[in-house]
Amino acid sequence: MNLGAVADRLGISAERMERMVGRMVRASDWPPPRHLRFDKAVAGVEAGTVVFDEDEIVYGYPKIRRAMMLAPALRSHFSGGVLVEEKMNGHNVRVARVMGRTVALTRGGFICPYSTEVARDQIPAQIFTDHPDLVLCGEMVGPKNPYVPKDVYPADSMDFYLFDTSRKGRRDLNGSLSTHALADEYGIRSVQLFGEFGLEEASEEIKKIVRDLGGRGREGVIIKDPANLKSPIKYTSSESNCRDLEYAFRYYNDYGQDFFFSRVVREGFQATEWSEGEGEFLERCLRLGRSMLAPMRKTVEAKIAGEAIVQEVEIMVRDLQTAKDFEEHFRRMGVRAIFDPPRPCPGGHLVKIKRLVLSTNDKTESIVEGQLW
Amino acid sequence: MNLGAVADRLGISAERMERMVGRMVRASDWPPPRHLRFDKAVAGVEAGTVVFDEDEIVYGYPKIRRAMMLAPALRSHFSGGVLVEEKMNGHNVRVARVMGRTVALTRGGFICPYSTEVARDQIPAQIFTDHPDLVLCGEMVGPKNPYVPKDVYPADSMDFYLFDTSRKGRRDLNGSLSTHALADEYGIRSVQLFGEFGLEEASEEIKKIVRDLGGRGREGVIIKDPANLKSPIKYTSSESNCRDLEYAFRYYNDYGQDFFFSRVVREGFQATEWSEGEGEFLERCLRLGRSMLAPMRKTVEAKIAGEAIVQEVEIMVRDLQTAKDFEEHFRRMGVRAIFDPPRPCPGGHLVKIKRLVLSTNDKTESIVEGQLW
Repeated sequence: MNLGAVADRLGISAERMERMVGRMVRASDWPPPRHLRFDKAVAGVEAGTVVFDEDEIVYGYPKIRRAMMLAPALRSHFSGGVLVEEKMNGHNVRVARVMGRTVALTRGGFICPYSTEVARDQIPAQIFTDHPDLVLCGEMVGPKNPYVPKDVYPADSMDFYLFDTSRKGRRDLNGSLSTHALADEYGIRSVQLFGEFGLEEASEEIKKIVRDLGGRGREGVIIKDPANLKSPIKYTSSESNCRDLEYAFRYYNDYGQDFFFSRVVREGFQATEWSEGEGEFLERCLRLGRSMLAPMRKTVEAKIAGEAIVQEVEIMVRDLQTAKDFEEHFRRMGVRAIFDPPRPCPGGHLVKIKRLVLSTNDKTESIVEGQLW
Repeated sequence: MNLGAVADRLGISAERMERMVGRMVRASDWPPPRHLRFDKAVAGVEAGTVVFDEDEIVYGYPKIRRAMMLAPALRSHFSGGVLVEEKMNGHNVRVARVMGRTVALTRGGFICPYSTEVARDQIPAQIFTDHPDLVLCGEMVGPKNPYVPKDVYPADSMDFYLFDTSRKGRRDLNGSLSTHALADEYGIRSVQLFGEFGLEEASEEIKKIVRDLGGRGREGVIIKDPANLKSPIKYTSSESNCRDLEYAFRYYNDYGQDFFFSRVVREGFQATEWSEGEGEFLERCLRLGRSMLAPMRKTVEAKIAGEAIVQEVEIMVRDLQTAKDFEEHFRRMGVRAIFDPPRPCPGGHLVKIKRLVLSTNDKTESIVEGQLW
């Protein structure tokens, strides 16, 4: 890799680039191909950007900002109508073909071996033959997603859903309409498009969609500009906020406090904007309180019973090597986990993974033993 | 003030002391007498320690640790029986006579002019004539407490309740029994002592006391060693946790996230330890959720209606100069507030104070105007 040429493409001086490598920019040759990963946003380059070569740069996926109050956010952010798509709850990947291999990059810019296997399996190779520079941005969802396991989608293990596209070396996204057309052309799953709405009706329509999604255990929506001139924004359901909390409070000491706080604040704004009746409001309060206390009680009870607190997830791989590679991937990401021996299943192998949540474990143990706060 | 002699008493080298003054140790001559205040704990000296002279040092009030699970905490912390006292909800002050003046010091080591007026009013001067080195540690509570206004106590404006004593130049506290004896002798209000309990029965008895206190809008208890050999610990009611949250969520962006998080975690442990029935548990969940969403909704609604978000408190002073001094005190503490003109009332003057909560104001305003998160 010619670091000077790479720096030039990124718009950074060669000296600065040299200084960054090994610090905010990590070099890795595993899994291949060899690449540089931007750990943090630096010098105008998004975090998660991955450089395979000066002509093979996959920029980090841009952060999608959140509407806290839907109606005013739509009014101030968009000028015409909006497209509304489902925001699925899994992990964001960028899939590209580099040096003859299809790879799936996580948000942080790691090549995830498991996501890569799924991507190779579900995305027809022809699309990259036809469009060698294409970057497919999508969500990996399903019950066998080891980052965010969810069984509310029509996925048996983990499925890829396309939601946008980009090109190597380009920071901009191609937008909703061309993405859905491409998905149709190549038979790739894509996120549901609920339709286009005028600015006047949009917030009422989105409220209905989000309520319905919430009731079905789904997360929320992404709102896009049909002409792709404005950046997309997101908006999520109360049930999804609360399910996030429910999951996180089982491991209350291993999550950042802003994870909790931001979700409570979202509820506060949604409750106000939707000016629900008192019964519905109390239901929301109960849902919120319960989503924090029920999982915590479970964790404390488990600890009193002498059990270890672990986060159990499962993956379903076609190739046993993928499971081994995924274990190495977790290790490199700094995740501490125990992988059970693989069990055969139709189409591949199941591997149970126990992620250790050390802080919650230790804290809870010490408190049930009488430690003071 | 002889800085070398002061350093010697504090167990610090003179050079180190010199370096600390102006940094972690602040010099102030207002309100008199001139003093040094330890802003942070440093070199083994508690935060809030105030030095008037080498023989006139009032050490910071020690942090009282919290039981998260009562029964195991009692077992591991105490060896014999325990005394149980009410923990009142106001602000902690240390009252002493220095250079002929009675002063009330806040937890952080500021001389609070308003607390000082109340202390001079309610504590007989004789006690300091008899015991010149005495430091009275107590809680200022009541509806006219500008830090923590509460109307659940038998106080019309703000009353001092003694809960421990110490001596100038000493870090140790004298403990519950001698404190109550002293309070009786001099006719000073003191916190309620619920009694002494054996270790076996204590957690059940304290649970009953705390539930009862919670139901009456009171905070909780301090648990002390009758022989004063162990440090005290605290334990609070669910209702008090939730009322704290209710207050704080009106100003959700001006409080630290750990304020919210720690209170939720307390609820989780208490719910588990008290292994309440499902109905009671759901009531707790609703109480918790409501304590966060109801005040936030109020704040957002106020902002939509174009109102400024302010924290309104009121003080009742005997002397108008006290109100002026208190305004200066707030200014020096970095609190931004607007003081209304005093209104006469029986026994003195009432002054309404509007504390500005700028962060919550700005954040809420921008969101109701459509700003994204």
